[in-house]
Amino acid sequence: MTAVQFERAYEGVGIVQRQSLTWIEPLALESGERLGAVTLAYETYGQLNAARDNAILLLHALSGDAHAAGYHSATDRKAGWWDAMVGPGKPFDTEKYFIICSNVLGGCMGSTGPASPNPWTGRPYGANFPVITIGDMVRAQVRLLDALGIERLFAVAGGSMGGFQALEWATAHPERVGGTLLLATAARSSPQTIAWNSIGRQAIMRDPRWRDGDYYDHERPTNGLALARMVGHVTYLSEPALEQKFGRRLQGANEPAFSLEREFAVESYLDYQGDSFNARFDANSYLYITKAMDYWDLPGRYGSLDAAMARMPGPSLIISFDSDWLYPTSESRAIADALTRQGRPVEHVDITSPAGHDAFLVDFAAQRPLIQDFLRELEVGSL
Amino acid sequence: MTAVQFERAYEGVGIVQRQSLTWIEPLALESGERLGAVTLAYETYGQLNAARDNAILLLHALSGDAHAAGYHSATDRKAGWWDAMVGPGKPFDTEKYFIICSNVLGGCMGSTGPASPNPWTGRPYGANFPVITIGDMVRAQVRLLDALGIERLFAVAGGSMGGFQALEWATAHPERVGGTLLLATAARSSPQTIAWNSIGRQAIMRDPRWRDGDYYDHERPTNGLALARMVGHVTYLSEPALEQKFGRRLQGANEPAFSLEREFAVESYLDYQGDSFNARFDANSYLYITKAMDYWDLPGRYGSLDAAMARMPGPSLIISFDSDWLYPTSESRAIADALTRQGRPVEHVDITSPAGHDAFLVDFAAQRPLIQDFLRELEVGSL
Repeated sequence: MTAVQFERAYEGVGIVQRQSLTWIEPLALESGERLGAVTLAYETYGQLNAARDNAILLLHALSGDAHAAGYHSATDRKAGWWDAMVGPGKPFDTEKYFIICSNVLGGCMGSTGPASPNPWTGRPYGANFPVITIGDMVRAQVRLLDALGIERLFAVAGGSMGGFQALEWATAHPERVGGTLLLATAARSSPQTIAWNSIGRQAIMRDPRWRDGDYYDHERPTNGLALARMVGHVTYLSEPALEQKFGRRLQGANEPAFSLEREFAVESYLDYQGDSFNARFDANSYLYITKAMDYWDLPGRYGSLDAAMARMPGPSLIISFDSDWLYPTSESRAIADALTRQGRPVEHVDITSPAGHDAFLVDFAAQRPLIQDFLRELEVGSL
Repeated sequence: MTAVQFERAYEGVGIVQRQSLTWIEPLALESGERLGAVTLAYETYGQLNAARDNAILLLHALSGDAHAAGYHSATDRKAGWWDAMVGPGKPFDTEKYFIICSNVLGGCMGSTGPASPNPWTGRPYGANFPVITIGDMVRAQVRLLDALGIERLFAVAGGSMGGFQALEWATAHPERVGGTLLLATAARSSPQTIAWNSIGRQAIMRDPRWRDGDYYDHERPTNGLALARMVGHVTYLSEPALEQKFGRRLQGANEPAFSLEREFAVESYLDYQGDSFNARFDANSYLYITKAMDYWDLPGRYGSLDAAMARMPGPSLIISFDSDWLYPTSESRAIADALTRQGRPVEHVDITSPAGHDAFLVDFAAQRPLIQDFLRELEVGSL
């Protein structure tokens, strides 16, 4: 992109702040361990109003980061992961709202994670990083909100694991949350989700280059992380999406090669996804974040889904996608039904899309008006 | 089991013959290559009648073998893979039919495959084994039928990849097939199936111990094969099956361990499946057999599914399972619809089962009467 385009795109989301904050005081974790110091990388878009009541916290998924919208430089090839939804006139309207997005604790995009230096040794934590939970991720975000002087969020919003965090915010810190937006998510990780995550972890930990997590001075466990990502990618899509995107097409050939090598287009796609993930993600972060996902179990924590949902303060918008088999519609419906039984205002919309779990990051047309209307009604208090 | 029980079980399937046949003359493969000598390991149950017209060929799935029924010795812990369906008074009634089952070409249970000695070098083929197809597997079986003096099969029957072979028999060699029984199968491998198979192959080929397939004098690529099997196992089950079998139960613990290691019951299950598969299966066979599956494409070969189904000679029974998402009901329905359009007698039954793709190997109650009735009607020619 040219510099002029960049300026326009950069300004598109209003005033972009790209920062990080570090707390020296250790963070008490759900496991009982203490982690310190803790840094959170975050970005903000738009401006906090005088009443400090227009902040919306966006929560990213497994492989996401704090860069939700706009561009960091004129050479960036891609905008932030939710750029289609964040900006002036977009559903998360930066002319009205102060949007915050932070990289999760355990991540590898600026926040403290297993690749960060262990203050006791000066070397990366690796597998000595403590196992964290979704609750721990949110506890770190609570510090961020405190530091920003935001007592109460206008709303929290997230898809997939971002939805876990949004639910955690709304149930563990209900007094600090206005509305809750949940996309393609669930109140607990199902055994099938655990199975896929576990296979990904096994692929990494069985890679000889994993070296018990202590690989930062050596070659990275790229085979393991690539395999984990390939498994993930198939679960993010759907049979119709794969049929539509690739079918049985061969990559750059008309006839089968009768070789053991990759030759179908879908295989090239997975290979590419594995490689590009290695270029930007840390294998140990993949282990810790998927483990946090596996522990996610709101009904388990509060005794039942209804008991958990009884803690939710404000109105909720729940969006699911009919071809999402990783976080199927039934999981969203269960949350919506429990909220309804608890007398909480909730709207659940199941969007028809062939894009599978990925739909929340690609099929924006149907989501835009839903989110826009929800935030508007939340503002006027008509929910 | 005790010796007496064994005798009873062994006699249960009538006269069990466990043999192998070797052809010195090379087999012409679909790729244009020639493979020789070729050995097929096979078992038979029951007796061929004087008219030689009571033979049923059973075709096994990816990880199956020739041992379809009964026991080989008194110390066997498990009977053959389809023991519930093969024996006197069972659907494949050994008092009426002569049942044949052979290990596929490319396999590692007695038939020629990549672990077999290359006659030119005396060392295992490894990755020098030629890439084979479902058609090649069936061509080898044609030789077996010729050797047994069986001109025409009363029926062919198989589930999953066994169904691919049954369809291949009925369309490539229609004059030799009476009825066709298809279970949990498809007329082509979908891009999603290719994706899972490809990830399994990548797991093996990225294992440093794979050594380009030349590992027989070294440690085996057990990590790669275990990962491939784990991926497979999740695709063979279903969300309800995993929920019912494991839920979010921890293995041998009440509280989370906050460790990166496996701790959920579903993780222990997958680990066990990976290990036990390594004890009995060859990683190179996994590569070649899944590759043959990926090439499977009847509509591609004949121009359309209808054109392929127009080649089918006799009546067909098609069984699918509503929770099977690997070979979903829609694939079976497509075959049944094409057969109907071509005026071929076909019955398609979609069985309600939570067991996913595995259902054809575990949920026998609903299958038994369907198969029994189909074979009876095939016999009296009322179809």
